Amino acid sequence: MQSRFFTLSRYPEGRPERELFQLETQTLPDLAPGEVRIRNHWLSVDPYMRGRMTGLHTYVPPFELGKPMEGGAVGEVIASRDERLKEGDLVGHMGGWRDIAQISSASVQVLPDFGVAEQAYLGVLGMPGMTAWTGLNRIANCQPGDNVLVSAASGAVGSLAVQLAKAKGCHVVGIAGAANKLAWLESLHIEPVSYRDRSAEELGDAIQLASPKGIDVVFENVGGTCLEAALSQLNEGARIAVCGMIDSYNAKTPVPGPSNLAQLVVRKARMQGFIVADHWQHYPDFLKEVAPQVVDGKLDYKETVKEGLENTPDAFLALFDGDNTGKMLVKLN
Amino acid sequence: MQSRFFTLSRYPEGRPERELFQLETQTLPDLAPGEVRIRNHWLSVDPYMRGRMTGLHTYVPPFELGKPMEGGAVGEVIASRDERLKEGDLVGHMGGWRDIAQISSASVQVLPDFGVAEQAYLGVLGMPGMTAWTGLNRIANCQPGDNVLVSAASGAVGSLAVQLAKAKGCHVVGIAGAANKLAWLESLHIEPVSYRDRSAEELGDAIQLASPKGIDVVFENVGGTCLEAALSQLNEGARIAVCGMIDSYNAKTPVPGPSNLAQLVVRKARMQGFIVADHWQHYPDFLKEVAPQVVDGKLDYKETVKEGLENTPDAFLALFDGDNTGKMLVKLN
Repeated sequence: MQSRFFTLSRYPEGRPERELFQLETQTLPDLAPGEVRIRNHWLSVDPYMRGRMTGLHTYVPPFELGKPMEGGAVGEVIASRDERLKEGDLVGHMGGWRDIAQISSASVQVLPDFGVAEQAYLGVLGMPGMTAWTGLNRIANCQPGDNVLVSAASGAVGSLAVQLAKAKGCHVVGIAGAANKLAWLESLHIEPVSYRDRSAEELGDAIQLASPKGIDVVFENVGGTCLEAALSQLNEGARIAVCGMIDSYNAKTPVPGPSNLAQLVVRKARMQGFIVADHWQHYPDFLKEVAPQVVDGKLDYKETVKEGLENTPDAFLALFDGDNTGKMLVKLN
Repeated sequence: MQSRFFTLSRYPEGRPERELFQLETQTLPDLAPGEVRIRNHWLSVDPYMRGRMTGLHTYVPPFELGKPMEGGAVGEVIASRDERLKEGDLVGHMGGWRDIAQISSASVQVLPDFGVAEQAYLGVLGMPGMTAWTGLNRIANCQPGDNVLVSAASGAVGSLAVQLAKAKGCHVVGIAGAANKLAWLESLHIEPVSYRDRSAEELGDAIQLASPKGIDVVFENVGGTCLEAALSQLNEGARIAVCGMIDSYNAKTPVPGPSNLAQLVVRKARMQGFIVADHWQHYPDFLKEVAPQVVDGKLDYKETVKEGLENTPDAFLALFDGDNTGKMLVKLN
């Protein structure tokens, strides 16, 4: 049996070129003991993957050049040499960027059976959902009645952060760009604020209009102007959960940080970075709280779907243009 | 009886001009019930006072234009209409920037009797010492064995932060400028690092040499290049206590922040601003721990002393030139 997969030919500077991603084909060897073979149905592409394309070891090791790339995926077991997994099982795993994954079974998880679509485990009930929940609750200690600001509020993580905060009884402001994204936020009774053509000061003024009582919790996905504007509106004791700073991921030269960081002192505020993997022991708590909301249709989760393995790099690159609403996924045929 | 005091004639932009500070004289009225009259011996000037010269209400209200300025002071009670205080008592209070203070007794504290010089209660055993202790222990959760970085390490607060961290069993790096300050740090077995003529990257390299195992705790007084260099050297789970950002206090135009704030995510680090006043209920704990170190001569605290009330503005302005080693004080005759 053959597997088609993507490799990275070198580490990019700035925005990755499409040509760096090579589609290769390999004939799979026989399954070794403890291995499993999975036909992938859905692949995940995520902004954090840019951090694995640098050659620097950060919190996840870099992609190895010339080796199959990795990423979240869900699919169906088609062969197994681990008795825990059997043919037909629907599983989640990290053997993405390929159609057929043959990997160690150790990190392969059978999907829970909540009766939701399987790709939900790459989004609302997977890493992005868990990230939103962790940042709000475990990092920012979000409480009912808080005034919450979320940047990239229609992205995979942000679109869930705004809704989880709203469900908690918060006043929620979401920053986005495109008109359809702002309209979607408004439809959920989230205050929409556009960052387009606005300086940090202008964006700060717009946030103030949308949240006249200031901001207690920031869920930061972007950095740059969004963070500077957020800092200008903090209440005393505000908490900023820093999930990402997509603004700087493709920068070739250093992007200056916010000029008003001293607001952390004035407002006695806390800014804290986090990586969801460190909090995975709380995944059952997350599922318990959020899965019923998904089943009951109370969480409006969006997906942007590209079809076909060969379009995986384009799906990934589109993340940096804000082309997705909600979770960006690749559907395999 | 007459009181001589300073007023501010308008709120400055950028570095305050000497001419903004007016020395005025007033004949004091008779003492009202609950008031006390104090002959000041020592006045404190501190960087935070710049924040009271903006007309904006931040965490302390601005100085009122044309009214006596305020600040930490110690002196001797010369008349009292509060039975708690009697003539001859040595007291600490906020009626500084003047020679004779006539104020409500409510916020006047009799100095504890540890047998140390009275001006110590404006420095090592006062607000700066309490700030160093609070930032290290209560904000950054500094533990024995941590690698600690302190900017403005020979300043009033920094010089105590380095020593308290050292006494706790930490590896301590101190950033300073002048050769005599670096030599002083070295004499205390603190790794001295100069920021002079160094880019953030170069300063980061120097910190790495001085602390090859990275940085677990940052006590930040400066911001700017110092903070960017510190961010580049963080270990996972690092804590940054932000005490101040003196770099930006006199800026007329916004100073860009560090370009590598995303390190907070990569290193899962926490950056938290604080104001010592919020932690004052722990002052007795601080005194219990630190006063014996002062009495036993284990804390090498420095003072820079200007003589005479009329030199108070110059003493204050010199803070922004790094002219002081340790606590800047004004001694009255």
